[in-house]
Amino acid sequence: MSSPPGSPGDVLTLISAGSATTRSDLARVTGLARSTISQRVDALIERGLVEESDSGESTGGRPPRQLRLHTDEHSVAGVDLGATHCRVALMDLTGAVLAESEEPLHIAEGPEAVLPQVDRLVDQLLAEVGRPRAGLRSLGIGVPGPVEFATGRPNNPPIMPGWNDYPIPDYFRGPTVLVDNDVNVMALGEHRNAFAGTGHLLFVKVGTGIGCGIVTEGALHRGASGSAGDIGHIRVSGHEEAGCRCGNSACLEAVAGGAALARRLTELGFPAESGADVVRLVQSGNTQALRLVREAGRLIGEVLAGLVNFFNPEVIVIGGALSRVHEHLLAGIRETVYRRSLPLATHHLTIVPSRTGVNAAALGAGILAIEHYLSPENINRIINA
Amino acid sequence: MSSPPGSPGDVLTLISAGSATTRSDLARVTGLARSTISQRVDALIERGLVEESDSGESTGGRPPRQLRLHTDEHSVAGVDLGATHCRVALMDLTGAVLAESEEPLHIAEGPEAVLPQVDRLVDQLLAEVGRPRAGLRSLGIGVPGPVEFATGRPNNPPIMPGWNDYPIPDYFRGPTVLVDNDVNVMALGEHRNAFAGTGHLLFVKVGTGIGCGIVTEGALHRGASGSAGDIGHIRVSGHEEAGCRCGNSACLEAVAGGAALARRLTELGFPAESGADVVRLVQSGNTQALRLVREAGRLIGEVLAGLVNFFNPEVIVIGGALSRVHEHLLAGIRETVYRRSLPLATHHLTIVPSRTGVNAAALGAGILAIEHYLSPENINRIINA
Repeated sequence: MSSPPGSPGDVLTLISAGSATTRSDLARVTGLARSTISQRVDALIERGLVEESDSGESTGGRPPRQLRLHTDEHSVAGVDLGATHCRVALMDLTGAVLAESEEPLHIAEGPEAVLPQVDRLVDQLLAEVGRPRAGLRSLGIGVPGPVEFATGRPNNPPIMPGWNDYPIPDYFRGPTVLVDNDVNVMALGEHRNAFAGTGHLLFVKVGTGIGCGIVTEGALHRGASGSAGDIGHIRVSGHEEAGCRCGNSACLEAVAGGAALARRLTELGFPAESGADVVRLVQSGNTQALRLVREAGRLIGEVLAGLVNFFNPEVIVIGGALSRVHEHLLAGIRETVYRRSLPLATHHLTIVPSRTGVNAAALGAGILAIEHYLSPENINRIINA
Repeated sequence: MSSPPGSPGDVLTLISAGSATTRSDLARVTGLARSTISQRVDALIERGLVEESDSGESTGGRPPRQLRLHTDEHSVAGVDLGATHCRVALMDLTGAVLAESEEPLHIAEGPEAVLPQVDRLVDQLLAEVGRPRAGLRSLGIGVPGPVEFATGRPNNPPIMPGWNDYPIPDYFRGPTVLVDNDVNVMALGEHRNAFAGTGHLLFVKVGTGIGCGIVTEGALHRGASGSAGDIGHIRVSGHEEAGCRCGNSACLEAVAGGAALARRLTELGFPAESGADVVRLVQSGNTQALRLVREAGRLIGEVLAGLVNFFNPEVIVIGGALSRVHEHLLAGIRETVYRRSLPLATHHLTIVPSRTGVNAAALGAGILAIEHYLSPENINRIINA
C-alpha cells in the first residue's frame, strides 16, 4: 500500500471524481472521523487544490458547502515533439484545453536547440490565457523514440541525435516533467478521450516507423524496461530480403512503415520521401501507392493477429500519418486479423482509426502530466511538504 | 474505488500482510478512529477470520494484543485438471499445503464423470488432515482449455468434449469456485512461489499444445474475453505446409507442440504419441528427437521474440511436459530471442525453466482461490452478510 487509505490524496481523488463533495459525504465514504476530514480538506484548501462554495443541496437546515477541485490556479502543458514539429496544449487540471499551438522544429538539432523552443511555446500559451508560469504544475512530453520513463532520458533514439541519455526533466525549472515515448502518450490520449471505459486497448502508430502503445486495466503498460510496444521490429514472413536499420531483416517497419513504402514507390518511378508523400500519392489516385498501402495493412495485420491472440484487446486504434488513408490500411489489417486470430479473441474486437487524430500526442502528454500531479502519492507529498 | 478505504477487508489485508498487527497500529496506519478499528477487528474475530493473542511487545505497560489471520478454520483447494490426470492440493489461507494427491482421470469423459471424482479427492484430503468440509472456503480449478473466467464455463475447449459452456462452479455446493485456464493458474503459481517480486512475467507451457499465462503488475492478464495468452496459434514463417486443428496453417503449435513433434518422430521411424514420448526419446539419446526439440525451441523463440518486443517482460518461464528436456528447448529459445528481440527489451530479460514444476497448476489454482477469498471485496461481503 503506497499511502494509507483516507490520506489527503485519497480525499482529493474523491472530490475531483465527484464521488464525495461535502465534508459529511467524505466522512461517510471514508469512515474517517469528521475532525480528520476537516483537517485534510483544510490542508487541501490551503494549498489551493480545493475550493469550497456556499451553494449546496438543502437538507432542512443550512445547505452543506460543496467542495471541488480548484482549477484556476493550476496549469499543465502537454508537449508533442515530432521529428519536424512541436505541438503544445495548455490544459487545466480537468483536462480542458486552454490554448494550443504548433510550430515546425528539427528534433535532430538536439536538446539544447529544441528545449528552449518548447519552453518559449509554453510561455507564449500561458501569456495568451493570462496564467502565471508559477502555476504550471507539470509538463508531459512525448518524444519520437524510446525513453527510460523513470528518469526521462531517451535511450538510443534512432532519429534523435544528441538526445541519448539526456536528462530532459532537468532542463525545466519548476514543474514536474514526465517524458514518454510518443506512441505511449498517444495511446493514453486516445484512451482517455475516446475509449475511457475500455480495459485493454492498443494504439498502433503507422508513420515513418511503426510503434504501439498499450493500455491495460486503464493504465499504460511500459514493461520491465519501458520498451513495451516496440512492434516495428517484429519479424514478418516472406520478406527476408528487407534489411532493417536495427540490423535484422524482415522487420515489420522495414516492409510496411512509411519510409519503406516511400522507397518502394520511388523505385517504381513515383518519387516519395516520407509517409506523408505516400498519403499524397494515394489521395491522388496512384494505384501503385494504393496497392502498397493495402499490402502494408495486411503485413501489419499479420503481426497484430499474433498480438490479438496473445493480448486479447478490446480495441485496436490505428493512428499516425498513414492512418489518413485509413480505409485502405484498415481493409488490409482487418482482413488479416479476422482471418488469422482466434474467434474468441476477435469476437468483441473493434479495429478503428484514431479519433483524436493530430492532437492525440499533445493531449495524451497533458493527461500524463495531470494524472501524475493529482495522484494520491503526489498530493500527499505536497501536503506534507 | 470498489470499497471505501479502511473497510474491514482493508483491515484484514493489513493484518494478514503483517503491516499492522495491533489495534493501535491499525488506527495509526489507516487514520481511522480507534472505535472504528475495534468494531472492524471484532467483526473479523467474530467471523473467525482473525485471532487475537495476549503476547506482544511490552511498551512499559500491558503488552498490546497481537492480531493475526486465523488459519485453522479455513481451507481452500487447488485443482489441476489435465487431459489424463487430476491433482489436488489442500491449502490453508497462508498458502501452506496441508495435503495433496494425484489420480489418473479422463477429462474427455465429461463433467458428470470427472467432477464427482474431484469432489471425492477433496473430501479425502480434508479427512486426511481432519478438517471439516464446512471450512472449505474456495476452490480454484485449472482446466486444459479456454474458460470464460467470470462464469467458470469452458469455451469450445478442443480436448474437453462435453464441457463446452458447462457451468463448473454450480456443481460444487458451498465454496466459491473459480475456474481458469491451466496455463493461467500455472503462471500465477510460478509467480507467487518463485518470482513474487517480478512485475511482468510470461509462463509458457510447452506440452501437447503451446500456451502462455501472462502476469502484469503482479496480476493475471486475461484480456477482453479471457483468451489472452493463446500463443499456440500465432503464425511462424516458412511452415505453410503445416495444417493446424484450428483451421489455419503454420500455427506455432502445429509445428512445435508435443503432438506435432511426436507425429514427425513417428514419420521418421521412432513411434511417439505425446510430448511425454518425445521427452523419453530425447532422454534415451535419440538424435532426431533432440534435433526436433531444439528446432521447436527456435520456432517458439521466434514467436517469443515478437512478444518480448511487444510486452517487455522481465522473466519468461518455460514449463509443460517438454520442459523436462529444457536444456535443449531453452537453447533454441534463448538463441532466437536474444538475436531477434531489441537489446533494450532483452537487457534484463531472464528465460528459465519452471521451478514449481509438476505442482505449478494445483498450487496456482489454490492461490487463485485464496486471493479471491481474502480480497477486500469478498471480506466486506462476508462481514456485511
